[in-house]
Amino acid sequence: MNVLGIVTEYNPFHNGHEYQIKQLKEQTNADYCIVAMSGNFLQRGIPSILDKYNRTKMALLQGADLVIEIPSVWACSSAEYFANGGVNALLNTGVITHLGFGAETTKLTMLKTLAKIFVEHAPSIQSNLFSTVRSGKNYATARASSLNDLIAFVSANDTLTNSINSGDIHLLELAESNIDEILNSSNNILAIEYLKVLYKQNSSVIPVSLPRKGGTYNTPTITGKFSSATSIRNSIFDGENSNWIDAVPSSTKDIILNNEQVLVHEDDISSMLGYKLFLEKGKKYDTYADCSIELSNKIEKNIYDYEDFTQFRHLLKSKDVTYTRLSRILLHILLNIKKTDYELGKDLDYTPYLRILGFNKESKDLLGHIKHNCSIPMITKVANAYNILDSKTYSFFENDIYTSDIYNQIILNKFRDSSLLKNEFTHQIVIV
Amino acid sequence: MNVLGIVTEYNPFHNGHEYQIKQLKEQTNADYCIVAMSGNFLQRGIPSILDKYNRTKMALLQGADLVIEIPSVWACSSAEYFANGGVNALLNTGVITHLGFGAETTKLTMLKTLAKIFVEHAPSIQSNLFSTVRSGKNYATARASSLNDLIAFVSANDTLTNSINSGDIHLLELAESNIDEILNSSNNILAIEYLKVLYKQNSSVIPVSLPRKGGTYNTPTITGKFSSATSIRNSIFDGENSNWIDAVPSSTKDIILNNEQVLVHEDDISSMLGYKLFLEKGKKYDTYADCSIELSNKIEKNIYDYEDFTQFRHLLKSKDVTYTRLSRILLHILLNIKKTDYELGKDLDYTPYLRILGFNKESKDLLGHIKHNCSIPMITKVANAYNILDSKTYSFFENDIYTSDIYNQIILNKFRDSSLLKNEFTHQIVIV
Repeated sequence: MNVLGIVTEYNPFHNGHEYQIKQLKEQTNADYCIVAMSGNFLQRGIPSILDKYNRTKMALLQGADLVIEIPSVWACSSAEYFANGGVNALLNTGVITHLGFGAETTKLTMLKTLAKIFVEHAPSIQSNLFSTVRSGKNYATARASSLNDLIAFVSANDTLTNSINSGDIHLLELAESNIDEILNSSNNILAIEYLKVLYKQNSSVIPVSLPRKGGTYNTPTITGKFSSATSIRNSIFDGENSNWIDAVPSSTKDIILNNEQVLVHEDDISSMLGYKLFLEKGKKYDTYADCSIELSNKIEKNIYDYEDFTQFRHLLKSKDVTYTRLSRILLHILLNIKKTDYELGKDLDYTPYLRILGFNKESKDLLGHIKHNCSIPMITKVANAYNILDSKTYSFFENDIYTSDIYNQIILNKFRDSSLLKNEFTHQIVIV
Repeated sequence: MNVLGIVTEYNPFHNGHEYQIKQLKEQTNADYCIVAMSGNFLQRGIPSILDKYNRTKMALLQGADLVIEIPSVWACSSAEYFANGGVNALLNTGVITHLGFGAETTKLTMLKTLAKIFVEHAPSIQSNLFSTVRSGKNYATARASSLNDLIAFVSANDTLTNSINSGDIHLLELAESNIDEILNSSNNILAIEYLKVLYKQNSSVIPVSLPRKGGTYNTPTITGKFSSATSIRNSIFDGENSNWIDAVPSSTKDIILNNEQVLVHEDDISSMLGYKLFLEKGKKYDTYADCSIELSNKIEKNIYDYEDFTQFRHLLKSKDVTYTRLSRILLHILLNIKKTDYELGKDLDYTPYLRILGFNKESKDLLGHIKHNCSIPMITKVANAYNILDSKTYSFFENDIYTSDIYNQIILNKFRDSSLLKNEFTHQIVIV
């Protein structure tokens, strides 16, 4: 039995996602597709446009057979933690045979080699490379310098040279490749992180990459049938045209139109975020995940100019901190995700439970296989979690409940309609 | 030199307040009137309709000569703490000769006797009396029982009997009075608390009471030229008529109409409050001032039915907890006012600094007198406070800064206009 796993966000689910599931299923000859999806807050440091249950439904209606939730601590974290949360969740099912993902490059071997080098030998080189590439300024110099760093490091290390020579790709080939261009694409960066997890776990799961179709990750405007999720969200909130409708499956369209009253914009967190920032003024924000003391000071110095989430992210932006990282840090402050939560999550091997968000009726066999192979507790009802999980694991799981509470409050505050009150403890799993 | 002090809220300043200042000034032959006013959050457990600077201006334009701020920890506390905050602030000026206040009863001697008994002998009797009176149900029984308790207590206590007999009022007279009716009026309750502070401080300041003119404290609809502040706020937010204009001096009218874009409704705190409640779900709320463990449990039990401030107060309401107390507790949770803040404030004798909000140009002499007589630091610029106050006092003062930060965020969130950004550190004192 072949089972394809994909790490996703679906914010919202669009034609590119449908194409990806279909192509990867064909390519891997998969009987089932399991999706590890972010909950209500995302890797980009923003709330999702629709809650996880609606997004689960979108996926199940277009080719996914089972949706599990990436723990919220990892769902809005940097690529490395996000990948660990997503891939480990999939591996924990005990049934996936293939891991599919999008990548800008077609050179999967190159990505695997980089993943191997980063895991085995050069975490600091990786971080240097990423930050040099990301700094953006003086691109040619940065590129040459990071490339040289990597080659120098690899050459100076006999074991590494041998392992690479005897491995998938020759050192020279690596040196001749355009590493910077590879590392400058968000899908490639994520792909390398996924591959690192597989490599670290010595997993037999087979990675399968697929080039993106249509607009890249960040394209702001609709580019046709295959458009970026960003452009689709922009078009939805813009409201002036309905171009986005052509970029999503009709099931997604219906779900969005049926839920127009609960669509969440990034800046809908502004009021709560401002409150939280002032609540802790003077107490330093560097206990929050990913926040340095320098950034904590900068937040405090600028706090009286806080207007809203987007404006404040722009205000804090500087060359050495990406906009996305800033978004995530502010989200960590809002959601109370601290460095100690990261530590606890790592202690618990990232994904100490399998939270089922929904499944396809026809995949009952799949659930049976998972129950048989999965070595961690499976949560289908939140109300049962307290009895199923040990206390450390439950306290990690509480982050998922809490972030949903906040998300539901955002909806309630925006629409002031008590019929929109939702509750993780009573919400039903999605079955289509 | 006669100087009249008044403890107030002015939410907003109306004809009754103008009448009170004028009458009390005449009655006491006062040269000046100093007002100790609540800042942006009030004794009733709600945010003020306009910020403290605008309310200061209203007062200074209609008879007040100097406005000082009641520390925010006490401003939104129960009658006893509120009175301690207000009266001590006035006494700290070192210049007031008279303390004026409204009272439903004309029997000032009776109020003084009750204050004396409560201070000297029967704090527990006081609390029993208040709660019996407030319980409301089975009024006749409650009244008889609390009266009997008091008489029994006084009779059983020789010292007390003597002190009362030789004092202002005879025990029999006390027994024959309608104590319950007296204790059932919010102004009388406050008056007794003011008198308790004077008595405890062995103060030579002369108390002067004045019956209310027009609608009582809680009357919801405009009753004419003299209407309650509640009815005026209701009429302003109602927007359908402008009856409220006749109930306020023209200067108040102008200030309100000029600030229509920043008028704050009680439920404008709903979004932040909901966020804060969920932020601390599972951690117990009984570290917050005035919150019992029972109420903390009740909040947690009902949290998933939270819709907004008003709805949640109604939901939590029960016979043994007043609506106002519930409002204050929720406000304490929002503003982070904890039991430890009460303890710190009491350690610091309630009002360890004199915060000037504004003054009348013609009262420069008064300020000179205060500087000469005041034994605590005077704050006219918030930016200087850190250097003027010792660290414990500054940490108490930070509550005033913080509550203003939150208030300003409420305005910003409501109106999303960055020109409304305000800051305690740069805001000018009001001079008219």
